[in-house]
Order: sequence, then C-alpha cells, then structure tokens
Amino acid sequence: MLELRLVQGSLLKKVLEAIKDLVTDANFDCSATGFSLQAMDSSHVALVALLLRSEGFEHYRCDRNISMGMNLNNMSKMLKCAGNDDIITIKADDGSDTVTFMFESPTQDKISDFEMKLMDIDSEHLGIPEAEYHAIVRMPSAEFARICKDLASIGDTVVISVTKEGVKFSTRGDIGTANIVLRQNTTVDKPEEATIIEMNEPVSLTFALRYMNSFTKATPLSNTVTISLSSELPVVVEYKIAEMGYIRFYLAPKIEEDEDETKPQV
Amino acid sequence: MLELRLVQGSLLKKVLEAIKDLVTDANFDCSATGFSLQAMDSSHVALVALLLRSEGFEHYRCDRNISMGMNLNNMSKMLKCAGNDDIITIKADDGSDTVTFMFESPTQDKISDFEMKLMDIDSEHLGIPEAEYHAIVRMPSAEFARICKDLASIGDTVVISVTKEGVKFSTRGDIGTANIVLRQNTTVDKPEEATIIEMNEPVSLTFALRYMNSFTKATPLSNTVTISLSSELPVVVEYKIAEMGYIRFYLAPKIEEDEDETKPQV
Amino acid sequence: MLELRLVQGSLLKKVLEAIKDLVTDANFDCSATGFSLQAMDSSHVALVALLLRSEGFEHYRCDRNISMGMNLNNMSKMLKCAGNDDIITIKADDGSDTVTFMFESPTQDKISDFEMKLMDIDSEHLGIPEAEYHAIVRMPSAEFARICKDLASIGDTVVISVTKEGVKFSTRGDIGTANIVLRQNTTVDKPEEATIIEMNEPVSLTFALRYMNSFTKATPLSNTVTISLSSELPVVVEYKIAEMGYIRFYLAPKIEEDEDETKPQV
Repeated sequence: MLELRLVQGSLLKKVLEAIKDLVTDANFDCSATGFSLQAMDSSHVALVALLLRSEGFEHYRCDRNISMGMNLNNMSKMLKCAGNDDIITIKADDGSDTVTFMFESPTQDKISDFEMKLMDIDSEHLGIPEAEYHAIVRMPSAEFARICKDLASIGDTVVISVTKEGVKFSTRGDIGTANIVLRQNTTVDKPEEATIIEMNEPVSLTFALRYMNSFTKATPLSNTVTISLSSELPVVVEYKIAEMGYIRFYLAPKIEEDEDETKPQV
Repeated sequence: MLELRLVQGSLLKKVLEAIKDLVTDANFDCSATGFSLQAMDSSHVALVALLLRSEGFEHYRCDRNISMGMNLNNMSKMLKCAGNDDIITIKADDGSDTVTFMFESPTQDKISDFEMKLMDIDSEHLGIPEAEYHAIVRMPSAEFARICKDLASIGDTVVISVTKEGVKFSTRGDIGTANIVLRQNTTVDKPEEATIIEMNEPVSLTFALRYMNSFTKATPLSNTVTISLSSELPVVVEYKIAEMGYIRFYLAPKIEEDEDETKPQV
Repeated sequence: MLELRLVQGSLLKKVLEAIKDLVTDANFDCSATGFSLQAMDSSHVALVALLLRSEGFEHYRCDRNISMGMNLNNMSKMLKCAGNDDIITIKADDGSDTVTFMFESPTQDKISDFEMKLMDIDSEHLGIPEAEYHAIVRMPSAEFARICKDLASIGDTVVISVTKEGVKFSTRGDIGTANIVLRQNTTVDKPEEATIIEMNEPVSLTFALRYMNSFTKATPLSNTVTISLSSELPVVVEYKIAEMGYIRFYLAPKIEEDEDETKPQV
C-alpha cells in the first residue's frame, strides 16, 4: 500500500514538465526515504536523478519498497489536469498494475481521480559516487536558461570556462561567435540573484546545447541552479526542490576538437 | 429596414466566437422579439439556438421579419475588426442582398462600415418544446470548460452522472481513466461560483467530448453554465447572455456500450 | 576604428525587428553624422531608410566613413540575445571583416560579445529629394497597425483617402467591403493620441496591404506614425525614433483600376 500526499501539488506538475521531454518511460522508486527516479534520456547520453524526500510530503505511507514504471508523457497529461493549488495524492495498492493520482481542490469541492496503467521497464540503478569537482557555479536559474537559449541561436555546443573572476559561456556557429561572461557577484540584494564560484582549479568543458536547454525545463522548480564541473566527470546541473529534494542532470563533456576553444579565456 | 444598435458590441463578437467553429452558414432571424439563430452543426449532430432580445439593444428597428443568411466565418472576420469597446450597429435595407456592420469607437473618432454579402440558406426551424429534465446542474462556466478540456486529454467521451450530492464527469482512454466529482456547493462568497444541483431522479449520460469542448467556446459570454439532463432528451448546455438572452447547445447522448459506466457512482 | 555605444540598447533591437522581414541583406553606413541604412526590400518594391544620429549615442567614434554589409536575420538573432535594459556597443576595427556587438547588463555583471561576419553587398544609395506632399496624416501608430491588420483580413489593397475632415482606409475582397474613417482630432488628453491632418488638396491612393503591414512592424519604436501622401510620389510612412532619428518606409501607389474607389468619400 502506497499513499503519498503532497499539499504543494504544483511541485509534482513542475517535476514532470522538467523531465518528460528528456525521458520517455521510467521507474519511480518509492521507499521509506522518499520518492525517487533515475533514468537515462532516450539516446542514453544524459542521466536525470530526482529525489522527493518523504519528510516533504504531508502524509507518506510506503509499506514496502516498490518500483512503478510509468510513461512520463501520459503521467504529464494526467498531472496537467490538476489545478496549480490542488493537493495531489499518489496511491497504489500492493500488486496492482495501476497508480492513481488524486487531485483535491483547496475548497474540497472538486475531487479528481486519474488512474494510469503501470509498465514493466528494465532499468539498472547506477550508483553515483560523491565526487570532488574542479569548480562549482551557483547562479540564477533564469539567467542560465536565458544563456543556453541565446547561445543555441548561434551554435550547437557551449564551452563553459570557469576562473576565479567569473564563468564564461562560448559558442561558435555559421553566423559568428558568442561569448557571455558572468562575474562572480555575491553582494546582491536577494541571495538568489548571486553568482557564486567555488573553484579549486580552472576548468573549461564543452557540452551539447541541446541537452543543456532540455535541463533548463526545470527552471520553474528553483530560483537558482548549481553547475558542478570537473574535467574527468560529467557535469551536474542541479535544481533544488524547496525543502524536499532535487533534480540533477548529468551530461558527459564533448571531446573538443578545436584546442583553442577549451582554454579558459575569462 | 433593419437597424440594431448594440452598445456592448463585444457581446456580438463573443457570440460569433462561440458558434463559428460549430456552424458554417446560418440564417439570422430578425423580428420584433429579437435577433435569433437556430442551426445544426455541419455534421448534423448538435443544435445551437441563440436569442438576443430586442430590449437588450439600445436601438432596435425591424420593420418586418427577415431572415439573413450569413457565412459565420466571414461575419467573424468582420466583427474581429471591431474594438472591444465599440458600439456595433447591424443594418440592412429591405430587399438588399448585403448586411452592414457599423463600428463606432467610444470617442466617435473612428467609424467603420463593413458590408457583407448575404447568402440563401435552406433551413427549417425546429420547434423545441419546453421539457422536464431529470437533473439540472448550474456551475461556473470556466470550471465546466476546464473539465471538458482535461477529460479530452484522456478520452473521447464523457459520462455525466448526477446524484443529489454532486455531479461526476468520467472518461476512459488508452492511458487510463479519469473521474472528476464536483460537490453541490451553494455557500460560496460569489453566487457565480456555486455548483447547484436540482434533481428529480439520478441520471447518467454519455456525450462526445468533441462537441462539449466546442460548446465551451461560449464561456466568455457568462460566468455560469446550466446543463439540463434527461435520459430521453438531448442535453441542453446553456450560457445566459447578460440581460439579453442566451446561447443554448443541444446534443443527443451516445448509446453507452459499457453498462458499468452509465451507473451513477458519485 | 568604429565604436558606437547606445545606452538604450532596446532601440536597436526594435529597429532590427522593424526591418528584418522586409530586407534580407543591407549595408549599414557609418559616418560622422550617424548610423544609417537605405535598402530596397527583396522584391524591389519598397524602400526603407533608417537614421540614428550620432548625438543620440552615449559614445560615438567613427574615424572614417564605412559601409558594413550585414545579413539582417543573423544580426537580429544576435541582438535578441541582448537584454532589454542592456547597453549595446557596436565595434569594428579598420579593415576587419567582422563586427562585434557588445551587450552590458545594467549591473555590469554580465558582458556579452557577439561577433558577426560582414558581407559584400552591392548597393546604390538613392538620393531622396525633399518633396511637397498633398496631405500629411499623423496618427497613433497602434491605430494604424490595427487598421492595416484588420483590412488585410478582408482585402489585399488599401485605398487611403484624405479630406480635411478625416482620413479613410478602404478595402474590398471576396467577402465584402470595409471602410474605416478616422476624424481629425487634436483635442485629446495625450498628444500621441491625436489624429492630425495637414492637407493641401484631397488625395486618394491605393497601396498593397502586405507592405503596409510589414511597415507596421516598426510600431514599438514610436507612439505615432506620419503618413505623407502625394499623387505623384511614393507614400512615406515614418516612425520617429526618440531624439535619435527615424525609420522611413517608401512605397509607390498602385494604379487603381476601379475609378470609383479612388475618389475620396470621407
């Protein structure tokens, strides 16, 4: 028996919007710890990891660990039927091949039950070890989304270069080149507007803008995004989900052919 | 000679938006009583009836009963050229094969005349007898529109079931099932937010969502919608037009194959 | 060496949006006077002339007259990456085959450099003599845009007829005819809402609505538009750019086949 009641149901709606374009089918894993998901995108290039901790739910009952395979597009269609102020409850009976999403309006005058068939999905859970990163950039999520969108109008890949002074996003395409430099800036009125750089050594890595732009679909979940970079590891793009957990996207750097481009030029 | 002056011209714009996707060509009937229309949709499944009473017009002159055949899409194109605050006057000379829509801006600094050719349209006026209904539901029109839109993302038909406690909207599709229950609720701050059920006996009927969604194009005309249901009659979905009249949509229920679905389960 | 710094960078963004659909490639001419452009549209029917005077720039350095050929679509892609509050600087080194657009955010925390390749474009600069016009109409630019858009839903051409009392815009299409009359109106609360007619003699001219609608892309640049009409000259549709200059569009009248339509009927 599974019953997870989330008062701020809009969070779950936003989570689905953040990942449904990247991942088609995935297992949601439910345990005493929380409600989580780990899945590769359909071309097996990017990895997404979601955690919603049990403490973040108003009511959390999960009698035994279960894994529920869902088509994220269908799940998204159902969650779109929830109002933004609705309470969402996820329910599943033991051994059932369906999951039920219940939406309650704030006034309790409208109660909706959406029942979805579950799927059998083969998946292996990757262990992701804690790692040291060369540089960690925390910045406003809307600014990161804007930069990825802007650069995609010029080129296909972005070189992210970090020095102590700032972070540079560069691209190159048929019509020209673009360099966008953000300065470290911790003295802002609102903490979520800061750009904060923790750097152990300078790093410059190249990524496909297509994936970066897909990750930024998570922007509505958090005012800030954290980008963790290391030359031997996939980048981690993390959006915290207020007091509940996170969505993390992992993407391996591209091997850069043009050596000049990989040198930090901030 | 026909001359109908409507100060709140935006009403006529909204009327056209409400019916132009359902009905292609139709006769507008003008008499001392008012300006009215009755037409089947192009597949002859749904019926729309419009009445704008003569008292609702600032000036209403109709020397003799006339019937003017119009292409609603062309009429809509012309009315879209009226500003939302414009006064609209409909004019036709006796025996003329054109109708003129005149738009006056509130300041009278902009006066537009749009002249449209009339069409000969065969149509028979159906007498719609007053009837007793098993159940009448009055609810916020935006809520009804939201429910029809949401259910259409899951299935093709909606089962509307009414009991004293509430009204249930259900559907079933490839990806699962959905049930939305609205409770009777008369103690709301604003009367237009109430859900009021008048019931003589429980009723459960199935309708094509495609038509229901088409009817909800009339939502901007009224804060509330009234749904009158009877097992032997077409449903009536009525939007009142403030102090002027109404738009009513009629749709025959589908014969339900799955008996379980037709029982009220509220 | 060229370096033009424009604090209100959004002006340049709006200029590009105003002309990029009309003109594909064009030479921007830079001299001590200012930054200017003159180009025909791709079908060689309309002419656009832009002037941004040097005094309007915060910093204006142009060591020698140069002409820079740009693809306006690519230039627009780059300028769209500037924030609406950004300062934009246009830079080019002598003899370079590239131009650089630098965008500085108001806080100076984000600095972007976009470098675009220049093109060789053959063009001849037309001398446009000062002329006397039969009638000059100044009116709100949004109203002019609305009228051109509305009429294009009915017909392909617009007849603009000016008398002392007002200006009439007429069209005719398969579904009917439309006449929109604006009265001269100088006693308005806000000067930009006035419709002012200076007339030496009545004039009635016919133009392709496709081009007029293209010109109205400049509407965000100015609250008012000035239309200068003469029976022997192309119409001039002018949008002033606050304290900096203008965009002017020139379009030759069509020879009207239906004589009745060309007579002023205001």
